[in-house]
Amino acid sequence: MVPEEYTNTTAALVVIGNEILSGKVTDSNSGFLARELRKAGVSLERISVIVDDIATIATEVAECAGAYDIVFTSGGVGPTHDDVTIEGVAQAFGRPVVEHPGLRLAIEKAVEDTPRSPLLKMAEVPEGAELISSGDAHFPSVKIENVYVLPGIPQIFETKVESLCQRFMTSPYHLRQVLVSVNESSIASHLNATLAAFPALLLGSYPKIGNDEYRVRLTLESKDERYLDSALEDLVGRIPGDHVVKIER
Amino acid sequence: MVPEEYTNTTAALVVIGNEILSGKVTDSNSGFLARELRKAGVSLERISVIVDDIATIATEVAECAGAYDIVFTSGGVGPTHDDVTIEGVAQAFGRPVVEHPGLRLAIEKAVEDTPRSPLLKMAEVPEGAELISSGDAHFPSVKIENVYVLPGIPQIFETKVESLCQRFMTSPYHLRQVLVSVNESSIASHLNATLAAFPALLLGSYPKIGNDEYRVRLTLESKDERYLDSALEDLVGRIPGDHVVKIER
Repeated sequence: MVPEEYTNTTAALVVIGNEILSGKVTDSNSGFLARELRKAGVSLERISVIVDDIATIATEVAECAGAYDIVFTSGGVGPTHDDVTIEGVAQAFGRPVVEHPGLRLAIEKAVEDTPRSPLLKMAEVPEGAELISSGDAHFPSVKIENVYVLPGIPQIFETKVESLCQRFMTSPYHLRQVLVSVNESSIASHLNATLAAFPALLLGSYPKIGNDEYRVRLTLESKDERYLDSALEDLVGRIPGDHVVKIER
Repeated sequence: MVPEEYTNTTAALVVIGNEILSGKVTDSNSGFLARELRKAGVSLERISVIVDDIATIATEVAECAGAYDIVFTSGGVGPTHDDVTIEGVAQAFGRPVVEHPGLRLAIEKAVEDTPRSPLLKMAEVPEGAELISSGDAHFPSVKIENVYVLPGIPQIFETKVESLCQRFMTSPYHLRQVLVSVNESSIASHLNATLAAFPALLLGSYPKIGNDEYRVRLTLESKDERYLDSALEDLVGRIPGDHVVKIER
């Protein structure tokens, strides 16, 4: 069976985060973006957490911008010494950092005064960057080429991601799940057989330790719902009935 | 002031995880490893979350193995079709995948029978790999060159990491924290001044939204405790006293 063709938009996230690498802060932005992109039908294919270093950011962003349709960065956009994301992203595209008049205006409006010079650092963008308004009172997001530069503070990151993801909305993934009561090794051959018949199926197998209800969770996904349900029927037909705990549609 | 020289061991983590990228599972292994390595005095410099794909794993592992002292992988080591980490790591080093007699023995012992063929997949290693016993009843870890291949199931990952980190224990990082009641832009120049005097200081500045106690948390770190305390004294001397909420030593 051949699945329908659907748009496949790919994405990557670059987290600029010494605080995450050193274990001081738990990263929640990655998980949030992963879930929102999935809902939008976008395939997140890489998350990189890297140090607050201009050259490292430049290399990573350049590689991701070339390899994926959309790139997000998280963190490193405040007014202090460790906020070097804008400079790194500019370097990735070989552009200078310039002050954006629209951002300067937004800052002046926010502080209702002539801002202190460290705050003006937040008006800097890679030359040629666009501003994306989030449709709320927040500071706009900076976009350069296919890269969206987002702040690391979870509350702001999440608001911006929710707003941006509406732009990327494409045909969604459909998900079915099968919980089984036996070990992975008992079902591996069934999974292989179903994949041979449905090679475009996204099939995951996740063992769970210390769970009374089931031992392995199987996830089946496709953008083509008919193809997905045929694959589900095929797989469930192969697994002995008393090994299936639950089917979630 | 010049800090003492301490050993600086660097590390990277490669998470093989479609389930994390698609938002179905929240990754807790990265945070756990980050905290354990920090305690051990090891500097985690990169986390990459990538898809369950042999070529992608091979490229990432090869790059990390060349750039960092220690590399960990998480996930993709079970008996099913989506478990391709061993093959990816083998390809990273240009080695074939072979059955390891010690692992086969461990599997036979665990199942108390002749194991089914899918389970025997878990006896496969890149040629020349070593087995590292975790000092408990668990399955040993596979090590090849400077790469430690760990399973993705959090309970097992954590047990193995705790055991492995004892091998890497080096001079620890010391941490001091200063909580301040003002915005980042008000203290940015003080941070820059302290960094000019203490360039080897690891200094982080993390704004917090919606917190009544403080607005920014400053983290100061060094392996040299004397250097660290001099830097702390320098910084606290620059920030007006009524802006300092708390100093954590």
